Amino acid sequence: MSPNTVAIADVVMSRCDELAACSEDPECITRRYLSPPMHDVHDRLSGWMRTANLTTRIDNAGNLIGRREGTIPTDGASSSENPAPNKNPTHNKSTVPRALLVGSHLDTVPGGGRYDGVLGVLMGLALVELLGDTPLPFHIDVVGFSEEEGVRFSKPYLGSSAMVGEFQAEWLERQDADGTTLSRAIVDFGLAPDCLSDSAYSPEEVIGFIEPHLEQGPVLESCGSPVGVVSAIAGQTRLRLNFTGEAAHAGTTPMQGRRDALVSSAAFIRTVSDLGQRVEGLRATVGQLQIVPNAPNVIPGSVELSLDVRHPEDEVREQAIKELLVLGEKIGQADGTTFSVLEETPEAAVVMGSQLKELLSQAVVESGYAKVELPSGAGHDAVMMAKRFPTAMLFLRHPGGVSHHPDERVERDDVAVGIEVLGRFVERLAGCGD
Amino acid sequence: MSPNTVAIADVVMSRCDELAACSEDPECITRRYLSPPMHDVHDRLSGWMRTANLTTRIDNAGNLIGRREGTIPTDGASSSENPAPNKNPTHNKSTVPRALLVGSHLDTVPGGGRYDGVLGVLMGLALVELLGDTPLPFHIDVVGFSEEEGVRFSKPYLGSSAMVGEFQAEWLERQDADGTTLSRAIVDFGLAPDCLSDSAYSPEEVIGFIEPHLEQGPVLESCGSPVGVVSAIAGQTRLRLNFTGEAAHAGTTPMQGRRDALVSSAAFIRTVSDLGQRVEGLRATVGQLQIVPNAPNVIPGSVELSLDVRHPEDEVREQAIKELLVLGEKIGQADGTTFSVLEETPEAAVVMGSQLKELLSQAVVESGYAKVELPSGAGHDAVMMAKRFPTAMLFLRHPGGVSHHPDERVERDDVAVGIEVLGRFVERLAGCGD
Repeated sequence: MSPNTVAIADVVMSRCDELAACSEDPECITRRYLSPPMHDVHDRLSGWMRTANLTTRIDNAGNLIGRREGTIPTDGASSSENPAPNKNPTHNKSTVPRALLVGSHLDTVPGGGRYDGVLGVLMGLALVELLGDTPLPFHIDVVGFSEEEGVRFSKPYLGSSAMVGEFQAEWLERQDADGTTLSRAIVDFGLAPDCLSDSAYSPEEVIGFIEPHLEQGPVLESCGSPVGVVSAIAGQTRLRLNFTGEAAHAGTTPMQGRRDALVSSAAFIRTVSDLGQRVEGLRATVGQLQIVPNAPNVIPGSVELSLDVRHPEDEVREQAIKELLVLGEKIGQADGTTFSVLEETPEAAVVMGSQLKELLSQAVVESGYAKVELPSGAGHDAVMMAKRFPTAMLFLRHPGGVSHHPDERVERDDVAVGIEVLGRFVERLAGCGD
Repeated sequence: MSPNTVAIADVVMSRCDELAACSEDPECITRRYLSPPMHDVHDRLSGWMRTANLTTRIDNAGNLIGRREGTIPTDGASSSENPAPNKNPTHNKSTVPRALLVGSHLDTVPGGGRYDGVLGVLMGLALVELLGDTPLPFHIDVVGFSEEEGVRFSKPYLGSSAMVGEFQAEWLERQDADGTTLSRAIVDFGLAPDCLSDSAYSPEEVIGFIEPHLEQGPVLESCGSPVGVVSAIAGQTRLRLNFTGEAAHAGTTPMQGRRDALVSSAAFIRTVSDLGQRVEGLRATVGQLQIVPNAPNVIPGSVELSLDVRHPEDEVREQAIKELLVLGEKIGQADGTTFSVLEETPEAAVVMGSQLKELLSQAVVESGYAKVELPSGAGHDAVMMAKRFPTAMLFLRHPGGVSHHPDERVERDDVAVGIEVLGRFVERLAGCGD
């Protein structure tokens, strides 16, 4: 860590504090998509961006973008017909500089923390500040996505969807809790829902997307690393399951004749946990039960269970689900209860673009830290961006791992390491074009 | 079964139907303590009682009592200084006939069934009708207790408490959901709360109490017996327990680092069920969970569990609780969660008076049925009455075992058997005095 990156990290920390004050609720940090405090965030952030010589704009999905201009190369290396991205990723055919996108989201969950999202945007800006006047053969677009948490319209990744051209016109009719449509919210914010397609970057314009983010988990802390590179964003299957038995009097019904739906559920919950322990990298959680009738003196007749299963590899997750459903069935048969699947919602895993990921890992090692690759269990804008662009994520150590909560924390020195890693990553990326 | 008892049972069934119409709610059977429909029940029931030559009265706790007078013995057998109850239980020292009390309660839970309670009272009346003019050396008091379910004032056994002199003056200040005090409710019903102590029978006046009641469980149905004699009313311990772990993100937190309070609870729920299966006669139930935060994507940080443990023998129940609490502690230690007992409310078991129970069992056998003795898992007025008088309970087979519900059922022929058994029991009891 250079004294310079530490000083820049100090600024990042105080900017996180400053943006935390832009909230719908004075008691905590709540900043939903296109809510009034988002104007404040845009004003402050684009002010800092302009001071750093970025050209700022807000697209019609509400994303804030600050561009650091790249230089046009003077040699003919970029005129090749089919530029292999691993040979010259920094320019496109017509020798116009391509853009490296760096950032994360600016919205928060209700009562959220001050780093989830915002930190990644400010680290993008910090990278630009670290680079100073160094000429680079590509643009750097610092991106503050307008929406990632899915709170206001029960739909996540609205900002990044627009940026990859995946924003669906029918979403404009979605309503928030007050009955305001998404379309209306965009107009009220001073933007044009009809021009949403303008938000999209084409693949030709973009080298890739880098998202710095808090880990929101304990892996880096437990292995003593300030930063790590995301190998994949876990696929996720959400299930609603049910055990049905028979409600009966807890005092009069002998144990032998019981068909206790909670006893079956208990066996299933242990089975889920055991399988999770056994399969490397699996996350399997029963987090919610709905017990009927849920009275101390009545044997539970029916229990609805949530099951959340995630893994960076889709086949592993699918195999785990398959196995768990067979085991649930067996438990039901053994207990005289009925096991059923009420709903199953799968989402595929996203493997991170290997070239950018490698460069990022090399930058970590070059900065003097161990190479740590880890999957992300949570979803991020990177999920959406990876649909169109090479994408990589840099995770920062998360003390305590508490997220979506006012207690969310990050160490200033880890932020400094992250900024240094981004700087070295950009140097290496610039070198690829030579 | 004689055609006579079948005909009497038919009347019992239709009277149960008729009293079911006396309800606070026209849609279902709801008849709480001293509610207006209880006047209807008293009117109809005391009408039938008077037709059967009973002298009726309503005590100041709202209990309805119909007395069939016993005869005063002409021989000197009863003038012994210390009448051993097993030699001459039917008269007290002064040769005044003692009373055999037979009955159950007239109140219901909200949305209850037509037999729970009422059936026992009407079977007491049916017994008197079966006896006709047969002279007996004791009174028979058919008792309709005013309150057993504990619904209106969150306090069960109000009627039987008064009858055994255990009604506490401070209960009069208890309020119902509308803010009416118990004292006011008694006055509004036309009774005198200041004279509640008049409700009490002295032990010298009473031979014992017999409560016929639906089993509210499956034992008699499963062994094919129309009736059974209760050996004891199970003691019961109600506990509130807690496992505390750590709430965390279901996607980002590796399985190994988790302290999942629901996974610990699941192990405990299986342990409770396993112990229940292993210990003869034990009923052990976890019926209610309160999970925090109870969200599909969050590892449960805390779970509060209810535990209901019953057994006819107090030592067995106490030993089971002790064992379960040790096992809960062990589960917590193994899982890295904290196990604690928030509340523990024990109630001792009530063993049924052995002489009356024996006479009742002999009457069952004499009626041509197998002797079945079974514990009651549920509480009854008999719990309170046993504090002062020899007490026995006759259970009737309960098809489906569903109670506290409109679907509550009983077979007319089983009622006939029960009436026949009561008749033979009374014959035997009268014989004891010879």
